[in-house]
Amino acid sequence: MSVTRGINRLLRNVKKSVNISERQVLALAYQPNVNDFEPNGPRVVTDIPGPRSKQLIEQLDQIQNVGAVHFFCDYDNSHGNYLADVDGNVMLDLFTQISSVPLGYNHPALINAVSKPENLSTFVNRPALGVYPPADWVSRLQNTLVSVAPPGMNHVQTMACGTCSVEHGMKAVFMKFMSDARGGMPPSQEALESCIINKAPGSPSLSFLSFNNSFHGRTMGALACSHSKWLHKLDFPVPDWPIVRFPNLKYPLEENVVENRTEESKILEEVEDKIDEYNKKGQTVAGIIVEPVQCEGGDKFATPYFFQGLRDITNKRGMGFIIDEVQTGCGATGKFWAHEHFNLTDSPDIVSFSKKMLTGGFYKKVTFKPKEGHRIFNTWVGDPSKIALLEEVVKVIREDNLLDSVKVTGEYLMSGLFNMQSKYPGILSNTRGLGTLCAIDFNTTDNRDKAMADLRKKGVHTGACGPTSLRFRTTLLFKTKHVDVFMERFDDVLSQLNK
Amino acid sequence: MSVTRGINRLLRNVKKSVNISERQVLALAYQPNVNDFEPNGPRVVTDIPGPRSKQLIEQLDQIQNVGAVHFFCDYDNSHGNYLADVDGNVMLDLFTQISSVPLGYNHPALINAVSKPENLSTFVNRPALGVYPPADWVSRLQNTLVSVAPPGMNHVQTMACGTCSVEHGMKAVFMKFMSDARGGMPPSQEALESCIINKAPGSPSLSFLSFNNSFHGRTMGALACSHSKWLHKLDFPVPDWPIVRFPNLKYPLEENVVENRTEESKILEEVEDKIDEYNKKGQTVAGIIVEPVQCEGGDKFATPYFFQGLRDITNKRGMGFIIDEVQTGCGATGKFWAHEHFNLTDSPDIVSFSKKMLTGGFYKKVTFKPKEGHRIFNTWVGDPSKIALLEEVVKVIREDNLLDSVKVTGEYLMSGLFNMQSKYPGILSNTRGLGTLCAIDFNTTDNRDKAMADLRKKGVHTGACGPTSLRFRTTLLFKTKHVDVFMERFDDVLSQLNK
Repeated sequence: MSVTRGINRLLRNVKKSVNISERQVLALAYQPNVNDFEPNGPRVVTDIPGPRSKQLIEQLDQIQNVGAVHFFCDYDNSHGNYLADVDGNVMLDLFTQISSVPLGYNHPALINAVSKPENLSTFVNRPALGVYPPADWVSRLQNTLVSVAPPGMNHVQTMACGTCSVEHGMKAVFMKFMSDARGGMPPSQEALESCIINKAPGSPSLSFLSFNNSFHGRTMGALACSHSKWLHKLDFPVPDWPIVRFPNLKYPLEENVVENRTEESKILEEVEDKIDEYNKKGQTVAGIIVEPVQCEGGDKFATPYFFQGLRDITNKRGMGFIIDEVQTGCGATGKFWAHEHFNLTDSPDIVSFSKKMLTGGFYKKVTFKPKEGHRIFNTWVGDPSKIALLEEVVKVIREDNLLDSVKVTGEYLMSGLFNMQSKYPGILSNTRGLGTLCAIDFNTTDNRDKAMADLRKKGVHTGACGPTSLRFRTTLLFKTKHVDVFMERFDDVLSQLNK
Repeated sequence: MSVTRGINRLLRNVKKSVNISERQVLALAYQPNVNDFEPNGPRVVTDIPGPRSKQLIEQLDQIQNVGAVHFFCDYDNSHGNYLADVDGNVMLDLFTQISSVPLGYNHPALINAVSKPENLSTFVNRPALGVYPPADWVSRLQNTLVSVAPPGMNHVQTMACGTCSVEHGMKAVFMKFMSDARGGMPPSQEALESCIINKAPGSPSLSFLSFNNSFHGRTMGALACSHSKWLHKLDFPVPDWPIVRFPNLKYPLEENVVENRTEESKILEEVEDKIDEYNKKGQTVAGIIVEPVQCEGGDKFATPYFFQGLRDITNKRGMGFIIDEVQTGCGATGKFWAHEHFNLTDSPDIVSFSKKMLTGGFYKKVTFKPKEGHRIFNTWVGDPSKIALLEEVVKVIREDNLLDSVKVTGEYLMSGLFNMQSKYPGILSNTRGLGTLCAIDFNTTDNRDKAMADLRKKGVHTGACGPTSLRFRTTLLFKTKHVDVFMERFDDVLSQLNK
């Protein structure tokens, strides 16, 4: 690839003239604007997966299950919004590692973060953060997580991944709920002893309410609140906790206000009924967990009215309210946190994050701060090297006005999708989205899957969700020119589909 | 500190003479043997935590609970076995970030891993490994995790942390158990649908057997198998799963063979009874999870006979057997995996790891490989940048014969502890250990805590476990000279304690 050849030539020339490391030349080479390194468009030279990917998949199969592997990537040669694979194909990436790449591939700012001498020991020495934090930990937290905290929340706990963030957020809710139940008094000796052997009163029979189609993670507590696919759930003994339908709304939301309001009001009633039912049978409901947009479950949107209703119910009943922003946070909706679109009169109690944030973790209201140390804890509780990267991400989002840019691109993308929906009414429906976090439905799963396969043949890599949806999960650097590259190929692909 | 001054001078001089980056000079500066950078001994200049640490703790308290924070560290100026804090104190570190630092602080090989140009994109671009692995992923796995796999286990799954490793290991057991129960036939439609809403048959009423005092993690499934401290457990609704006493053996093990055998035989019977009891009440026991040494619970050792017994019971009953090596793996016992000391006639089904391995994950027998993709999965399933670091760790362990070195140091440490135990018989007892993974008991919790506080005043940082134990969790580079530094101060401290 010409970019690689260019870098290699630069490397040789510069190394000749001064005594300098390859690494330093690479860092220099990457310094110019990332756009200079982005290809002008996709390039497809083999089937995807190609022969080299297939060979590697076969080798990996000797070590672990490869059923989910699409292809092997060449990250050295991936740039901006373009992902390269090991067979020399270069794809416009609309799925970005399951929505976890904020600034595209090999962004100069992130290369800078890894290359800075003052960050070296941060990448080399991973501390037990909860016990022996590094000297710059407070200032790093302030520059990153605290500086972008959702309104009303200035306490934050780092974690290693999304699932752990959700689980520990749930634990913060359970602790607060039981502390309130004790009227703030210390736990009894009986509670302290019985909890060790998983018995009441120390291990109380509490539950969490979640929604159909939701996805919150894969360890036992988070998995008990996830209800999207059997692949995540089959054979695992999760507790029988309350589940309520998620609103099934008509899109566009603003054209179906009355009908949608009726649906959401009905579901809010069902939530109350379900809480009463579980409380009565002794599995007291301590909290509600919800995604601002149900992503894995099919990009299902609800309105601010619904989320305000959940906040009101939990406040009224002294329950905790978790908004899980693992997939929706970090700017993809045009606001830093998706739930900022809801104008809640009182902020959620816990907001979990991961993916684009590069670190897992959760925000909490100060009232949900545990009383003792070691309650929300593990060996690493996160990784300062991820915060060093996040520091650059937050800076670039600010300096390059990426939230505004996401709004512009999002509107352009949505308007393109509406055009396609008009052009192919038998195939497409339900264009919906916030910022670039958009989706569109196909008339059948087969058509959705065929469109995705055909798009890949044209060098556009996309992601599915739910049974018939295509979801857009781009970087924050996705611009209108990238939308054009996609839309041209999308039109082509749609014109070949059966209605 | 003189090391810093030295580096700064080097930096200035070298920068004068050639056009070179600070980072490159730093890398050069660190190249010589790590021992050249280790101080000759501890240096204590303030109380610990000192004024700067206290100030930072106060600041961090505005962001999160700080109850577990000991002091803030200066990782730039920590070297080898010596940990520096932000107040200029330098401590010999016998606890190493809760046993998670394999090669000490700022080891040249790890600095090299971060600095290598060919690793740059690995640190910058974190992939969704289960779907889009990098080109070098198979070879990296082969160089690292596969090359040090426990006997009989060549399948491995990476994860982000120890808890997730345990949870997903348990899930692998649940899946295998249910697949066997179906006679290998595909699940019924009813199972596929019911699992989504947490109901049988898709969500079966299975359980896992664990031991008193054990610690396996903090998310709901792993937490249900952990029974060491109320701080981990109180207020969390974990399932009522079977728990059996862990053997309470007499040390030294080799001098109490008959008595210990009786105790272990009795417990193996209790295990069988407990399985029958839970099977009968419909919470079928799918597996057993055990640590090779109960670390958090008080460094409790059992003999190969006991572990062989557990392997036999689980094999006989078609149950899964997990050995949790999160704290014991990666060479601390003088073998790469602690359970290699047990000479099991058949390997465990799952071995979980994290901490010193720098990445979480678990080994599994090929029969525990899931049939479908996405069954053991999450967005990141680990982090290739941690594997890039592990690659260096494994190389150094091999090239520097660190397993042999750990045996030598371990024997020297144990013999020193036995001396102290003879000198202070009213205070110390139960010296025990494998390699440098050693512990000793105090007569009272107060004396243990006072000894640790006094040791810290003398610049030796240690870790506690259980109610009265001091545990040794050193780096793999801990040598006899470091034992001498510790033992001299330990003797001093013990001579001041009340019996």
